This record gives sequence, C-alpha cells and structure tokens, in this order.
Amino acid sequence: MAAPIEFWFDFSSPYGYLASRRIEALAAKFDRGVDWHPMLLGALFQHVGTAPLIDYPLKGDYSRHDILRSAHFHGINEFRMPSRFPIPTQAAARIVLWKKATDPALAVRAAQALFRAYWVDDVDISSPDAAVAAAASAGVDAAAARAAIDDPAVKSALKSEVEQALARGVFGSPFVFVDGEPFWGLDRFDQIERWLSTGGF
Amino acid sequence: MAAPIEFWFDFSSPYGYLASRRIEALAAKFDRGVDWHPMLLGALFQHVGTAPLIDYPLKGDYSRHDILRSAHFHGINEFRMPSRFPIPTQAAARIVLWKKATDPALAVRAAQALFRAYWVDDVDISSPDAAVAAAASAGVDAAAARAAIDDPAVKSALKSEVEQALARGVFGSPFVFVDGEPFWGLDRFDQIERWLSTGGF
Repeated sequence: MAAPIEFWFDFSSPYGYLASRRIEALAAKFDRGVDWHPMLLGALFQHVGTAPLIDYPLKGDYSRHDILRSAHFHGINEFRMPSRFPIPTQAAARIVLWKKATDPALAVRAAQALFRAYWVDDVDISSPDAAVAAAASAGVDAAAARAAIDDPAVKSALKSEVEQALARGVFGSPFVFVDGEPFWGLDRFDQIERWLSTGGF
Repeated sequence: MAAPIEFWFDFSSPYGYLASRRIEALAAKFDRGVDWHPMLLGALFQHVGTAPLIDYPLKGDYSRHDILRSAHFHGINEFRMPSRFPIPTQAAARIVLWKKATDPALAVRAAQALFRAYWVDDVDISSPDAAVAAAASAGVDAAAARAAIDDPAVKSALKSEVEQALARGVFGSPFVFVDGEPFWGLDRFDQIERWLSTGGF
C-alpha cells in the first residue's frame, strides 16, 4: 500500500468536519490509508494574519450560507451549525494525539466521534469532560483520556504538531497532503481524486 | 430564456480569469446568458479587511502553486502568471462598462481580450494605452475607448458597480449569482452547475 494521505484539521472547522466524512472513502478508493492530524487553527491564523471566516464582514455571512449548502451538495445531511462556534479544541486534539501513539485506528474512531458530537449533536467539546465522553463513546478509556488532556507530554505533542503544520505550510482546515502535494479545502477534493488517480497533473 | 447568470470579477484575479474561460459554456449548457460585471477587488478587500491572497504568509506560496495547478486541472493551458501581479484594473473595467452600455456582446469580447492580454500574453493592462490596444483587438474603437477611461460618467459608473457589489455581498473574484444565489470562487462551479440543473439543493 502506498503512503497514507495526511489529513490536517481543526475540530472547530466546518469544512474540516465535512472533509472528515469523505476522506476515508476517497483514500480507500486508491488503496490508501489516512493519517489524521488534529491541530489548532488559532495558532495558524495568528501566524498568517487571518481570522475565522465568520469574523469577516460579507465573507462571514456568505460562509454561514455556503457551509450549509456545501453539506447538502456533498450529501452530508448529518450537519448543523453548533450553538457555540468557533470553540477551542485543545481537549479533543490532545485525546486523539494521545491515543494515536498506541492505537491509531481507535484514535480515528475517537476523532470521528468528536466531530459528530460537535457538528451533529451540538455538544460543546471544548469542555474536557464532554470531549472525554465523546471519545469514550468510540471505545476510548475515559479516565485515561481525562488524564491525557492535562498531561504535559501530550500538551507538548500538540504544540509540536502545530509547529510542524506551520513548517509544512498549513494555514487552514482541512489541509491534505498526497505524497507531499498540498491541497487546502474540501473544494480541492476533486483535484485530490485526480492526483491520486494520475499521480499528478 | 431564463435570467442571465451574473459574473462579477476583477481582471487582476487569476481565478477570475480561469472562470472567464468556463462561464459562457456553463451558462449556455442551461440556456442562460452571462452578465459580465468587471469590478475592483481593492475596494472590496478594504471593506472586508482582507488582502490579496499572495500577500499572506504560507497562504501566498500555496496560492501561487494552486493557481497553476487549477489551470491544469481545468484544462486551461493558456495561462501564465504575469510579470506584474496584482495590478490596478480601472482602465480595463471602465472600457468594458462603457462599451456594455451600447453593445454588451462586444463588451464581453473586449473583456475576454483584456483577460487574455494580461493572463496569456503578459501585457500590463493597468496602462490605459495597453488596455485600449487589447480592447481594440476585439473590435472596440480605440480612440473612443481611450476617451472613455477618463470620462467622469464612466468613472462614476464603475464606482457605482463597486458599491452595488458591496451591497450585494460580493467580497472576492470570481463571484457568481444564479437567480440571486451567491457563489464565490471557481471551486463553486460544480455547485453552480448543479444549481442550474436542479433549481437549488
């Protein structure tokens, strides 16, 4: 099997959530795995000098509309704008990173459960307890996950991920690498598919 | 024939140029015309608080790469990054707006010639004389076009267009309206096509 696709995302990113619903099937079609990389958009935005989409005049209103329309367009009906948005996602990201070190497959299921909690069930996963409950629903040990959130080694691992993201040129979510080739946004999935199919264009 | 698609763009926008190469065929497929609206991104960016893509760290480098890749992806081989980019596009926009009032079909051909001059032949159409020459190659009267660029009524018409764009929520290029529904970016052409085909989703 060829190298996995890298999937970088923030749990608070709506297009990141929509991408999370499509990325595994897209990769599997070309016999690829997916390496899930939770990270923190806030740190990236600070570096780049951008802000969350919805904070901009005009662009914010458009984006709220486009997010819902894009969900429909991609046939993802399990979607609602959360009551609180955007949110800090350190707790969710740390749980996934911590679990990834010992059981990557379970870490992916935890990530999917965390996305679902926030984007389908309107659970505020910025709360460590809520994030733990979502991950536990996927089979993660709750007490160990709760401890991981405050573990200095896990905190440090997330900081390293964010630094690696910046060093790789990541500035938004979702951000995908296919054999090193960077693709930003759910709306590059058509280009990703052709890239996987042809090896480049 | 149903109402035309509205196509808002800045001549200095690379994705606007790529969109200009596809919009007429897309509209024609659904028996629609296209209403071409040249405008000025600078004024919109100032209102929204954004900057040209290439001015952002990380995002700028990615965008330079993505623009070329997107041209290939869409099969548009007639494309090169201009030596000078971005450029002010008042002269080009005024010629098209002026001509549109009396001969909309010729105005479209002039717009296409202006896009081609800048994005294929590397002509700096910020120069009034260069913009006039490009428009003249499409059949526009050169002396009248040169006069139109400095005509206070034409200048005022362009200002009104930009104000109308802001009032309509336009904040980028290309920006398309289909029966009032807003779509930002070349990467929404797939959604535009489905919208035209289904009447909404």
